[in-house]
Amino acid sequence: MAALQRPIRSRNKESPMTKGLLIIHTGDGKGKTTAALGMALRTAGHGLRVCFIQFIKGSWRYGELEAVKRFDDCIDLHVMGRGFTWKSESLEEDIRLAREGWALACQAIDSGQYHLVVLDEFTYLLHYRMLEIAPCLEFLASRRAEQHVLITGRYAPQALIEAADLVTEMRVVKHPLKSGIKAQKGIEF
Amino acid sequence: MAALQRPIRSRNKESPMTKGLLIIHTGDGKGKTTAALGMALRTAGHGLRVCFIQFIKGSWRYGELEAVKRFDDCIDLHVMGRGFTWKSESLEEDIRLAREGWALACQAIDSGQYHLVVLDEFTYLLHYRMLEIAPCLEFLASRRAEQHVLITGRYAPQALIEAADLVTEMRVVKHPLKSGIKAQKGIEF
Repeated sequence: MAALQRPIRSRNKESPMTKGLLIIHTGDGKGKTTAALGMALRTAGHGLRVCFIQFIKGSWRYGELEAVKRFDDCIDLHVMGRGFTWKSESLEEDIRLAREGWALACQAIDSGQYHLVVLDEFTYLLHYRMLEIAPCLEFLASRRAEQHVLITGRYAPQALIEAADLVTEMRVVKHPLKSGIKAQKGIEF
Repeated sequence: MAALQRPIRSRNKESPMTKGLLIIHTGDGKGKTTAALGMALRTAGHGLRVCFIQFIKGSWRYGELEAVKRFDDCIDLHVMGRGFTWKSESLEEDIRLAREGWALACQAIDSGQYHLVVLDEFTYLLHYRMLEIAPCLEFLASRRAEQHVLITGRYAPQALIEAADLVTEMRVVKHPLKSGIKAQKGIEF
């Protein structure tokens, strides 16, 4: 949590009339998290700060982590959750971790320190009902007017899509893992 | 072109059995180039080299360029073309630039120096028939077995999709520019 208490190193120099967008990357295709990473790095390229919260531990590996390290003056990365899936044995533990992650997200959004807050793989928490959607949407709707929030993950609930400004579906047209080619460095991880 | 003659700073340490993928990001939605940028940075995070060729000059702005600068030991960025669109007044000039860009792409792919070669917005050259598709596909099919190539842009021709290993369509579900919100720093550029 220390990251949230650091002094602001770059301020949003945009007009106060700028509208913060709620952006969703969903669908069963690749590129949801990768495009979020690209957007985070692009934002950092402007010298603006990003809070990137991964809600599924282990979904990122060496390549992303090393890439983000070069931007540690602009990007604060937090890893929540406890494995590749939220469909684990202990529902209570999952709910506890989901609430903890959401509390961190709320704090980051409220802090006013970030141009962009990314909630990576967050949709699963809503889809698997680890969190109630209504209070989440209410919180997002009440955020500062210029705060951009980007949420990724499959199965984005309809209510989230309705609340969003920008929604992209990454749709699989063709996938090599289906033709038996193994996951590869830089491409899949 | 100097970049292509530099000594190799990081080699692909993967097994020679790795299959180089032909990857396409197409569709009318956002995230095609952004996901390519994310993949380039992830690859660079592994210490592997990337050649990123932009086929539409001016489509990148400050944020991406500054982000990529932090990886100038791993990512060689080339900007081809001459404006935001290839539908310009001078067809001859467009064809000349398209051929020049494709020649550079071929050289990068042939060089064996890059884990990943990105041809950003390349589909437009095929769609607007600035280049013939058959020799392009033939060249791509004959590349080194482990060479990954990522092509982005709308209107990916069917023959290119058929030749590809991994195709993702970025589909617009909702877009803020349609609701009158202006393009914003870090989000759109």
